[in-house]
Amino acid sequence: MKYQVAIIGGGPAGYTAAEAAGKAGLSVVLFEKKSLGGVCLNEGCIPTKTLLYSAKVYDYAKHASKYAVNVPEASFDLAKIIARKSKVVRKLVLGVKSKLTAHQVTLVQGEACIVDPHTVRCGEETYTCDHLLICTGSETFIPPIAGIQEVNYWTHRDALDNKEVPRSLVIVGGGVIGMEFAAFFQTLGVEVTVVEMMDEILGGMDRELSGLLRAEYTKRGIKFLLHTKVTGVSQIPEGITVTYEQDGTEGTVCGEKLLMSVGRRPVLNGFGLENLNLELTERRNVKVDEHLQTSVPGVYVCGDLNGVSLLAHTAVREAEVAVNHILGRNDAMSYRAIPGVVYTNPEIASVGMSEEALQASGVSYRTVKLPMAYSGRFVAENEGVNGVCKVLLADDDTLLGVHLLGNPASELIVMAGMMIEDRRKLSEWKRYVFPHPTVGEIFRELI
Amino acid sequence: MKYQVAIIGGGPAGYTAAEAAGKAGLSVVLFEKKSLGGVCLNEGCIPTKTLLYSAKVYDYAKHASKYAVNVPEASFDLAKIIARKSKVVRKLVLGVKSKLTAHQVTLVQGEACIVDPHTVRCGEETYTCDHLLICTGSETFIPPIAGIQEVNYWTHRDALDNKEVPRSLVIVGGGVIGMEFAAFFQTLGVEVTVVEMMDEILGGMDRELSGLLRAEYTKRGIKFLLHTKVTGVSQIPEGITVTYEQDGTEGTVCGEKLLMSVGRRPVLNGFGLENLNLELTERRNVKVDEHLQTSVPGVYVCGDLNGVSLLAHTAVREAEVAVNHILGRNDAMSYRAIPGVVYTNPEIASVGMSEEALQASGVSYRTVKLPMAYSGRFVAENEGVNGVCKVLLADDDTLLGVHLLGNPASELIVMAGMMIEDRRKLSEWKRYVFPHPTVGEIFRELI
Repeated sequence: MKYQVAIIGGGPAGYTAAEAAGKAGLSVVLFEKKSLGGVCLNEGCIPTKTLLYSAKVYDYAKHASKYAVNVPEASFDLAKIIARKSKVVRKLVLGVKSKLTAHQVTLVQGEACIVDPHTVRCGEETYTCDHLLICTGSETFIPPIAGIQEVNYWTHRDALDNKEVPRSLVIVGGGVIGMEFAAFFQTLGVEVTVVEMMDEILGGMDRELSGLLRAEYTKRGIKFLLHTKVTGVSQIPEGITVTYEQDGTEGTVCGEKLLMSVGRRPVLNGFGLENLNLELTERRNVKVDEHLQTSVPGVYVCGDLNGVSLLAHTAVREAEVAVNHILGRNDAMSYRAIPGVVYTNPEIASVGMSEEALQASGVSYRTVKLPMAYSGRFVAENEGVNGVCKVLLADDDTLLGVHLLGNPASELIVMAGMMIEDRRKLSEWKRYVFPHPTVGEIFRELI
Repeated sequence: MKYQVAIIGGGPAGYTAAEAAGKAGLSVVLFEKKSLGGVCLNEGCIPTKTLLYSAKVYDYAKHASKYAVNVPEASFDLAKIIARKSKVVRKLVLGVKSKLTAHQVTLVQGEACIVDPHTVRCGEETYTCDHLLICTGSETFIPPIAGIQEVNYWTHRDALDNKEVPRSLVIVGGGVIGMEFAAFFQTLGVEVTVVEMMDEILGGMDRELSGLLRAEYTKRGIKFLLHTKVTGVSQIPEGITVTYEQDGTEGTVCGEKLLMSVGRRPVLNGFGLENLNLELTERRNVKVDEHLQTSVPGVYVCGDLNGVSLLAHTAVREAEVAVNHILGRNDAMSYRAIPGVVYTNPEIASVGMSEEALQASGVSYRTVKLPMAYSGRFVAENEGVNGVCKVLLADDDTLLGVHLLGNPASELIVMAGMMIEDRRKLSEWKRYVFPHPTVGEIFRELI
């Protein structure tokens, strides 16, 4: 069978590319070995946010008295939370599917294998294509810790389907995934310990805001072990013991469950990638240009597989750029303003450069920082909660980075991203009328 | 005493102008007869949002089971809700005050009276100024309904300080203020009737979305009487009877309390405005140019008093423009993208033109509309709730208007305002990476 575009992988990159190419009138085949929607929709972004929202509702109920609402008793049903999560995922997967079929995309369920730049095999069938988009994504990285194969650890996938509340949970890796699960389980009353190798959680996010979030969750009861290297794990009757080294001394921490969330990495094997002889980067990722095209013309790699950003929204944009290149439309990928969000409560969101990155690259910058309490709405809706808005400016006041701690940071950050992407100055926000009262007004207050 | 800038009125227009002028090094005197912060901060935007947030928390608790959280019992304490509101207002008023004193603004508590463009009297003192900014705002308009002087009706001010939950409430006027109080009291269990003269609530907002919101609140128990003219009111032992005319027939509705929220209008008397002989518009408002300057050079009118938009955020921007004009900085007021928000639950937010306005002006446009359920995060956080995102596009796809029903519309609408202000096309949103999952992604979905 012959198609103009063959796409391997039905996650955000793959389904976005398929929809865009189909909409443009190209004949498209999309291969997915597991579930349409990929990790993001089935076991990542969406299910975690569904769980975290239930946790938020529970948390609001427990702290309703701050707003003069009396809730003498609140409890939750984790099995029902998980069931609702699955329902939300099903609904959204169906939504993706119907968009693809509406644009005449052929969906093939199965493991595809690349034969050459124009040939893909799946099961007994051979498919030929003019353009090949590889969007196979990433997988959880499990470091080779002593004893890891003998213990019954969780990955994010297990944590998402677990229906019984453990008494305690040790999370190895305090990145975004680790912290979102830490927030979720802490809210449900689980005794949570986060073990992080670096000296701050949420590496890559603004260090100061990460520290503030950590302080907040420390207050709520999460135990953080920073600058701590896990040296071994072992199963005990009550759960799992984690042995670690911190500043030269050994220690142990036990948890009924253990969640491994050290990170994710591109999957390079198992689908014939080696048959393409693609050029790799120094870090052994597939090299792509600003159109997401590899060293082989007509072959594109979008999403986590190229190892650039490992975020669903980056994958979406990369897929659009790749399809536009196929269509001969003028477009190019920019990584200048990729937002990063941590959906804890409060949320952290960042876009552009961090202070750490600016310092490392020797760029001169100045910092303007305001407590979120400068927004009247934030005060009205966040009793006893603090937040920070921090912007980093070039010498000519061009926005280099924006970092927010406080709800709804996730929804506000893209406004900052629009400014950073267009290399605009902070003062340019002044021309726009922000509705009053909103939390977003904090950006105008900075000027 | 001599100042470079004299400002009458300490609401959003006045305090913004004072801060901006003080920051620029001008000597500034600000007169306020009542409370710094004006109606917006003391009895408008901020207190209503504080109340509405308590109502939201109560509502979340009552419907927590949708998210698998069990709250067997929830109640509220209206007196405490009101007390918290007052605390929030006090905090924010202090914030405004400290910003003004930080910029060396002289605050004068008292009723100012304009003598001439360069002279203001307050109490026994006479103040001279180079520039005069008049920001005295608006007042609640009470229509001359038969019997209105004899009944004990509420304005928004009374509703904000009322500590006892009435059994029933009749609201005359289904605009933004009326609907926000309707939402608040309905959530607290009050039997609410909204009487509106027009044939839809929220005149000026998108008619279709207003109708959807009305349908939602009808389902929750609010009774709407549209196209209904109030002909009389009278006090009865149980409360107040409202007599009305609807399609030629008379009717009555009784409420323990009556809230009058027909609208607001500029206050033109009582502070010597007549001594300036300012040119007026056809609608008898003070005429201002794009710098908010009146027909008398050096005299500016910002905020509700000029009758253009009657919104706090418009006032803020107008004040900035006026001060920039005084400072000789290049700036001009644009009303192209003033957002309008109704803080019901769900919220409605609009910016730019409505379909009704476009039709009236004969501009050709097309509509693109999506259910909010196209956003995965909306689905995750809005169980059983619908929403709509509607954009109106010119023939070349320039954004003319954006209308949202669904939380957090208030925080998202400014992103659309930025696009409309800059006369940009819908497709230009594609260049920006929106974090996933967010409700804001709905804008990219429209493309």
